[in-house]
Amino acid sequence: MGLLVVGSIALDSVFTPFDPWAELERLSARGIDWSGVERAEGESFRWKGKYSYDLQSRETLETRLGVFAEFRPKLPESFRSAGYLFLGNIDPELQLGVLEQIARPKMVVCDTMNYWIKGKKGALMALLERVDVLMVNDSEARELSSDWNIHRAGRWILAHGPKRVVVKQGEHGAMLMEPGRTFYAPAFPLEEVFDPTGAGDAFAGGFMGYLARIDSISDESIRSAMVYGAAMGSYAVSHFGIRGFEGVTLIEVQRRVRTFQDLTHVTLAELVP
Amino acid sequence: MGLLVVGSIALDSVFTPFDPWAELERLSARGIDWSGVERAEGESFRWKGKYSYDLQSRETLETRLGVFAEFRPKLPESFRSAGYLFLGNIDPELQLGVLEQIARPKMVVCDTMNYWIKGKKGALMALLERVDVLMVNDSEARELSSDWNIHRAGRWILAHGPKRVVVKQGEHGAMLMEPGRTFYAPAFPLEEVFDPTGAGDAFAGGFMGYLARIDSISDESIRSAMVYGAAMGSYAVSHFGIRGFEGVTLIEVQRRVRTFQDLTHVTLAELVP
Repeated sequence: MGLLVVGSIALDSVFTPFDPWAELERLSARGIDWSGVERAEGESFRWKGKYSYDLQSRETLETRLGVFAEFRPKLPESFRSAGYLFLGNIDPELQLGVLEQIARPKMVVCDTMNYWIKGKKGALMALLERVDVLMVNDSEARELSSDWNIHRAGRWILAHGPKRVVVKQGEHGAMLMEPGRTFYAPAFPLEEVFDPTGAGDAFAGGFMGYLARIDSISDESIRSAMVYGAAMGSYAVSHFGIRGFEGVTLIEVQRRVRTFQDLTHVTLAELVP
Repeated sequence: MGLLVVGSIALDSVFTPFDPWAELERLSARGIDWSGVERAEGESFRWKGKYSYDLQSRETLETRLGVFAEFRPKLPESFRSAGYLFLGNIDPELQLGVLEQIARPKMVVCDTMNYWIKGKKGALMALLERVDVLMVNDSEARELSSDWNIHRAGRWILAHGPKRVVVKQGEHGAMLMEPGRTFYAPAFPLEEVFDPTGAGDAFAGGFMGYLARIDSISDESIRSAMVYGAAMGSYAVSHFGIRGFEGVTLIEVQRRVRTFQDLTHVTLAELVP
């Protein structure tokens, strides 16, 4: 197994509830093994949010853990040899518990959110010491570090464990911060943006899926993974829910990735003093 | 003469007032001909603003035109052959008046602001039909087009005259929009940002200065000019007022421009379906 994703399947209140089981069946056609998905009696995890008029910021109206409060991920034996591990946005204690079940991961990336930064800071800091990359949005990076300057916030995080920080910035793209080096992946220019919900997860999917597929964690591969992440994020925001991904093929993703290169292409001429 | 800049010299209320005349004397050492600067009796133009905690947005508290209300720029004869013209943020009627005094400009770039978008929309639209590039910040582009989506806003502006739009986005860099093509110049990663006032003008200075210096308006040159603009903007925000530029040499600017290339450098590998 290449890439293991651990997280929760939730009904966000920003779109019409659908049957998550039927959706999972459709993922099988894409070669995704969802045999590890646990189904529990009770309420689904729910996040309710409100986006600002320009979709630049969002306010959490409600977070209800539901059955998720009792969730203790137990990985099937076949999952424990995963090379690439993405720890989705769940309780950092559970993220740590999952990490301990993986034998020898090549790369561990974790997400988190304001709910855990406020409520489980200790466990989150312990987790950070053991992950390779923290992947968060700009407001989360600011909240975690208590610093409004995003570059100082990134340096603070790098000083607390992760070798890299990916900061997602919505329509402004995403930044990869490493000690002494920064990379910007712009967002794909979109004239129609409907729903930013899940764009961060789509970014993570593109980022991790790319690395697992080429099986490389070189500096250059990680920069490429940022662009694949940005491409996948762009499909997410174009429609409500997960509809933006329907019918997207690898060939189409490659085409979009290629257009990214022109977005920052420049040949700089030097001026003679 | 290469580059002609027409605008106003103002005391912004965000920093301690200084003697603008003494500052101009110091510009002479940089080879700038300020003989066209007109000095009038009365109050200086004043803008008073308040930045948000994260310096992402600003509110105009007061705009007082002062002597500027009666300003009618009359260009010295030697200025009328300028190849590159930057129409700084002044009344669009005056910008049009200046444009009419220039014989055959190779490139005309104009700035504007909310004050004129609200109060002089007609003159501004007439001006847009005659400029090559509109250079504004994101909130101005949104206000001018009445569209919150920045890419649609850019397309709206392109449909009303300019061949290109430069949208300055503060810490998120700047975007160059052309029909069917977009370029992103990221902002230089800065851990210390003190005062965004004037960053847009510094960007314009780097952009126009570069084009006038190499005397080229090719697509590639304009992309390079974006990077020179971003570099100059980064000096502006590092200190209050114009102190960030003191002692900056062309060699140092080149060094900063070179570091920009690494910010977006990526060699994309293709995935085999």
